[in-house]
Amino acid sequence: MLKFYYNPVSVNARRVWVALREKQIPFEPILVNLDGDQLDRDFSAINPLQRVPAIEDNGFRVIESLAILDYLEAKYPTPPLMPSNPEDIAKVRMVEMVALYELQPATFPLTRVLLGLDVDDRKLDAARERVTTVMQFYEDLLAGRSYFVGEEITLADIVAGTLVPALPMFGFSLDVYPHLKAWSEHLALRASWQQTTPLPEVVEAALPNMRKILERRF
Amino acid sequence: MLKFYYNPVSVNARRVWVALREKQIPFEPILVNLDGDQLDRDFSAINPLQRVPAIEDNGFRVIESLAILDYLEAKYPTPPLMPSNPEDIAKVRMVEMVALYELQPATFPLTRVLLGLDVDDRKLDAARERVTTVMQFYEDLLAGRSYFVGEEITLADIVAGTLVPALPMFGFSLDVYPHLKAWSEHLALRASWQQTTPLPEVVEAALPNMRKILERRF
Repeated sequence: MLKFYYNPVSVNARRVWVALREKQIPFEPILVNLDGDQLDRDFSAINPLQRVPAIEDNGFRVIESLAILDYLEAKYPTPPLMPSNPEDIAKVRMVEMVALYELQPATFPLTRVLLGLDVDDRKLDAARERVTTVMQFYEDLLAGRSYFVGEEITLADIVAGTLVPALPMFGFSLDVYPHLKAWSEHLALRASWQQTTPLPEVVEAALPNMRKILERRF
Repeated sequence: MLKFYYNPVSVNARRVWVALREKQIPFEPILVNLDGDQLDRDFSAINPLQRVPAIEDNGFRVIESLAILDYLEAKYPTPPLMPSNPEDIAKVRMVEMVALYELQPATFPLTRVLLGLDVDDRKLDAARERVTTVMQFYEDLLAGRSYFVGEEITLADIVAGTLVPALPMFGFSLDVYPHLKAWSEHLALRASWQQTTPLPEVVEAALPNMRKILERRF
């Protein structure tokens, strides 16, 4: 059975977790504690970059969340989570890459503030500006659609949809972005989202580890 | 004709440039100066995230280098730069994602050193360790192959192959990684690499802009 190395507070792991649920792929969840287990020799043999998520499927190892998503799509194509025409593929990839290169890094200085760590004011302003640019970019792409690409869920919704709901925690209201808000609320009703939402006490307990991880980040 | 917004010193733009050459797609190059042009209203309308590369193909805009690569692959499938079986797809995606999330961010503190900017010693050590982990990861994946996936070039080679040749500049020798070294030398012979290598004087002239961009990075 497919082995899924994860931690419930990792947003990188969660997007794979949601995809596994959406595709109804049976898997064995293997919890990797982020207080040092990810640095152990055993886990380093699975992922030398020492991060969750990772999967092992019949002995074949895949690391990096977006690589895992594309592997799952190719190996378990039904139900599809990728469109087939070039323009829709471009849309899905833009949403994914903007989420991972633009939105997610911008949440790091904002998380530092929540954790009471010091942060450069200029960087904080730049991060806040980046978040609102991405929200507007997503708002425009969604227009009146249920999902980023028409009426069916794709990897775009999974990747952005496991990050965007966290934005109000950093002080960004979704109210100014009606399409984004409706889409976010719609996703929250899916079983795959509900089954993978981390419990508040689990998040709370993970804060010291998050602090350590952020301090190491370059 | 496809419009390609680029700058010759941008490694993010270069991977698209190489793919355009490899696929022999005719394009109009549009130079975006990185001393502020990328922040102008005109370019912001094309890419609200204000980065190169971006493309416009018959009026359809794509941003984010990896999204552009996947769009080009879907729209202009010949010659193919993606394999078709799940395990090979996973390999290509792992190489791409490790390049962008692990290797490229690790070069930022190293670039700060080259530019004479201050940098935290702990972060510098972590960055150096990360680079060598990635080099070993690539070395193992390459084994004795000409390219990451067998004998044909893929997006994996383009994405990693426009970053790895810069590593000696930061003090990492490829000599310890014979497969990586042979692969890198092999890529350097391709016309697409030779046509897109930035001239030393162009890189030199771009240093003040790189400094500004690094100072804004969060």
